[in-house]
Amino acid sequence: MRFLHTADWHIGKQLNQYDLLEVQKDAFRQIKAIAKKAKVDGIIVAGDLYDRAIPATRAIGAFDQMLKELNIELGLPIYAIAGNHDGANRLNFARSWFGKNELYLNTQLAEAFTPIENDECQVFLLPFFDPQDARIYYHESIESGNLRTINQAMQRVIADMIKQFKPEKRHILVTHFNVQGQDNQDYELTSETTSIVGGLKSIDSNLLTAFDYVALGHLHLWQASPNQKMRYSGSPVKFNTKEAKNKKGVYIVDVPKSGAIKYEFAEIKPLKDLIVIKATYTDLITATFYKQYPHKGQAFFSIKILDRPQVKNVRQNLEQIYGDIVEIEYMPAKSTTEAMTKMVKRTQLSETALIGQFYQDVTKQTINEHQQQIIEDILVELKREQEK
Amino acid sequence: MRFLHTADWHIGKQLNQYDLLEVQKDAFRQIKAIAKKAKVDGIIVAGDLYDRAIPATRAIGAFDQMLKELNIELGLPIYAIAGNHDGANRLNFARSWFGKNELYLNTQLAEAFTPIENDECQVFLLPFFDPQDARIYYHESIESGNLRTINQAMQRVIADMIKQFKPEKRHILVTHFNVQGQDNQDYELTSETTSIVGGLKSIDSNLLTAFDYVALGHLHLWQASPNQKMRYSGSPVKFNTKEAKNKKGVYIVDVPKSGAIKYEFAEIKPLKDLIVIKATYTDLITATFYKQYPHKGQAFFSIKILDRPQVKNVRQNLEQIYGDIVEIEYMPAKSTTEAMTKMVKRTQLSETALIGQFYQDVTKQTINEHQQQIIEDILVELKREQEK
Repeated sequence: MRFLHTADWHIGKQLNQYDLLEVQKDAFRQIKAIAKKAKVDGIIVAGDLYDRAIPATRAIGAFDQMLKELNIELGLPIYAIAGNHDGANRLNFARSWFGKNELYLNTQLAEAFTPIENDECQVFLLPFFDPQDARIYYHESIESGNLRTINQAMQRVIADMIKQFKPEKRHILVTHFNVQGQDNQDYELTSETTSIVGGLKSIDSNLLTAFDYVALGHLHLWQASPNQKMRYSGSPVKFNTKEAKNKKGVYIVDVPKSGAIKYEFAEIKPLKDLIVIKATYTDLITATFYKQYPHKGQAFFSIKILDRPQVKNVRQNLEQIYGDIVEIEYMPAKSTTEAMTKMVKRTQLSETALIGQFYQDVTKQTINEHQQQIIEDILVELKREQEK
Repeated sequence: MRFLHTADWHIGKQLNQYDLLEVQKDAFRQIKAIAKKAKVDGIIVAGDLYDRAIPATRAIGAFDQMLKELNIELGLPIYAIAGNHDGANRLNFARSWFGKNELYLNTQLAEAFTPIENDECQVFLLPFFDPQDARIYYHESIESGNLRTINQAMQRVIADMIKQFKPEKRHILVTHFNVQGQDNQDYELTSETTSIVGGLKSIDSNLLTAFDYVALGHLHLWQASPNQKMRYSGSPVKFNTKEAKNKKGVYIVDVPKSGAIKYEFAEIKPLKDLIVIKATYTDLITATFYKQYPHKGQAFFSIKILDRPQVKNVRQNLEQIYGDIVEIEYMPAKSTTEAMTKMVKRTQLSETALIGQFYQDVTKQTINEHQQQIIEDILVELKREQEK
């Protein structure tokens, strides 16, 4: 069996005020082309199909069209689950009709224990769930303590799946969690490289070792895969500046009747890239500098300005050059951490002086009399509040 | 061909704060039983499937279940359209998969020109649309004046449907409008007997005479059918006090290969009826009076009190006896119209006296000093506002 593994489509998501739908449609066209070229036997979509529980009408229309092109036009089976961003109950609509055409879309924990089977594989589709869902499913009270954490719940769920295993077949799990293993132990902490994980507790990868391949969704970077046989495909589109430098794509996974699972990463080129620029304002508005980047309208830009420009209309000026700017940030010349360290050493100063010094360290400018007055007023106000 | 014709399910509707879902589910069970008993070949649902464009999750779940029971479990073809209450684009999701199992659900005007065909019939599913939709579909500007009104648009739409007619077959139209014909000319004006029509212009029934049967939705009373071969099935559930006295049900329609169409009304008994009571407060709280009505919790009540009870907690007192009261109205002893006529004759009185006299006419009680003061204060306030 040969699968295309993708996840985290987040159809309908916006990048600040910018609509990503056209970028998402283009990424989908590439996914479809990859699926055709690789002659896959099915498509795995590991959750977060939509970006929100009640998606916009045009997001629904786009998603419907994508499913139709893959499942009805190309005749490919689809193995999909709801992620934490999806409205599980709402997404459950029409499931029975989908299933008749090999479009499998699980949104409820109870649906996860009946694998989709063919001659070679059993595919278990486990949607995102929380310990509360597991307690309801297993009729356990919270007081029993048996299903208090997601790891306890996952252990029980996986044990029940293993009972369904047919030993002559390969076993594939599709799920949507933050799974931590040997290769990504520090990923949750390294916020520069992982995307937001939604504040969810991580799952221990050891709980999932019974499967031949675990197709994951949730983390948006494929680099965050916990180990060789448990992989994140990542999102097909860049959703935040932390993902800007990373290539996007899907996995083509070969699951032979026996022997090693093989997988290959197939890249998706963004219709409109997300580019992070760090530069001084003077550089940013200089033609020789900005001509190295895609033209206005051809990319989304996140701009970090390294100084404090003394001009009005910074955003408008930059938008005239760069077009769609999703974010403007003013970076301090020194790192905030350094400044903080210095500040700690200076605790003998008065509060006002301390703040003034900090301002100077960060901005390279001296605090003026008016600013000083504002700070003093605020400090008086704060003290009054404390004494109340 | 034998059809069950129903419409205006409005799944998820509330009667004031009261949830109708259980009543709607029960009505559906009866529809299903009628369909089985009558051995119908298909189910027509003529629009307003949901009550709103973005239905609640449990309304979606209930509707999904109903479609599943009819179409997948009983294997019945479904001929459905979107009504003015439905969110057409949102409801369009999964349409392609439904169609593969003979669940036909049209939500867009463009879909209406491809009839569903079998050996005997061509069924045209024309969802609710407005002149603007027709102008977009036909690429006509509003300035041309050709598709300004719904009747102009309907004429063109029907003409294009007639082009598709196969003369050896019977032609059925399913649509969702306020259609006016010989039998219901005064229905829109008679607000006691028709339900709200959504402020929509009516369609001339003469535009639809090419069809052998027109299965209508929109008006909630089957009694409002425009003529013998264009019929409203009405809603299966009572949605407002104007519908309280009328029987609810569905039509079983026989469309033979040739000859007259026959139809029969099959009644649905409400799980919880909607009962309108008009009585004095004293009667309402007297056991011999209220024992003639269903017990508390067994019905919804709309209560019109014929006098002005001088007690506190009228609603709480009545709720203790009747349970679910969807509406309490105080009826004036004389009709408001009569009182208004008298008032017009008395315009020589001061404003305060005029209001006092009106109060007395309506309530049979003299206005007291405190009330008089309030009225004067309000009048002063109003004059100040005017002079600003």
